[in-house]
Amino acid sequence: MRFSELNLKLPNWVEPFLDGFDTDLSTTEQRMKLVIELSRENFKKNTGGPFAAAVFDLDSGNLLHCGVNLVESVGCSIAHAEVVALSLAQQALGTYDLSQNNRRCQLLTSTEPCAMCLGAICWSGVSSVVCAARDEDARRIGFDEGDKPTDWIATLTKRGIAVERDILRESAADVLKSYADSGGIIYNPKSLND
Amino acid sequence: MRFSELNLKLPNWVEPFLDGFDTDLSTTEQRMKLVIELSRENFKKNTGGPFAAAVFDLDSGNLLHCGVNLVESVGCSIAHAEVVALSLAQQALGTYDLSQNNRRCQLLTSTEPCAMCLGAICWSGVSSVVCAARDEDARRIGFDEGDKPTDWIATLTKRGIAVERDILRESAADVLKSYADSGGIIYNPKSLND
Repeated sequence: MRFSELNLKLPNWVEPFLDGFDTDLSTTEQRMKLVIELSRENFKKNTGGPFAAAVFDLDSGNLLHCGVNLVESVGCSIAHAEVVALSLAQQALGTYDLSQNNRRCQLLTSTEPCAMCLGAICWSGVSSVVCAARDEDARRIGFDEGDKPTDWIATLTKRGIAVERDILRESAADVLKSYADSGGIIYNPKSLND
Repeated sequence: MRFSELNLKLPNWVEPFLDGFDTDLSTTEQRMKLVIELSRENFKKNTGGPFAAAVFDLDSGNLLHCGVNLVESVGCSIAHAEVVALSLAQQALGTYDLSQNNRRCQLLTSTEPCAMCLGAICWSGVSSVVCAARDEDARRIGFDEGDKPTDWIATLTKRGIAVERDILRESAADVLKSYADSGGIIYNPKSLND
């Protein structure tokens, strides 16, 4: 066995992009606008699929960390935008539980979470999730969202995780469509496409 | 926003442990024995929860990578044993799709996958999954397995991923019980325990 390591970090373009994004981030819509622009920039810069996410501290209003899909660029099927944003926010705070010290964190995601990310959300300690595009918008261009419980929103709310959806949905769905139109890779495992 | 990185790698004890594990690894039971011993060693060495996993190439019989739970030691709720094993196997092979080049990979896990890991398995490109302890063995000591589809095995088999369960179940469940008896942390997010 050859020992390997996984290193997840944001692409180099993200820091100057955030510096240049001078919109106020006090409302949910403004935050989602940032997330959607990150999803667009991620595929334009060829660093991954058209997906982005961000974790905000609901009390301070601070952006704790953002994430973009890094499946292709890192070579890791787990590196969905939500996983990246949640993991890096936890690393920034030094805890595996974002709810530590009664912190209330919100995850915003450009597309409703797939089955894996839905599970990851439950373990992360976030208290709410906000989504833009729907599962069907991702499926329409060929992405597989996995086998989610039929009422996946109820599975989160019963755990105390509030869900808002359709925030700037059209704008996020437009990014997905642009990705498909540009010939972007739909990177489901080959075995699932046989 | 303070930019952070996530680095996942196996604890230092794993390499000498594997070197000292001189059992033949040609049968499923022998491979699972290795995985269960890794799960036991992980909590004894204080590097994480009592969970381990491994990815084997079914054609060559080679161990591609193993993984252990690193939630506490890395401070990352996503760092379940299956996620670690799958991610590191992908890094070792340089692809986000373990089924690339018609490779057939098998994931062995000391406990049936939680909802997040179940999703991760679908995106990884493995062709089969072998489990030791059942969900209820993990739940019995307080771990949350998440909201999995009722017939989660069918969700895998319909995607061409074969599932075997109960391989050395008692032995793996004994490790879980030993962890609980030793006062090991049950690290569900605080918000879920309120």
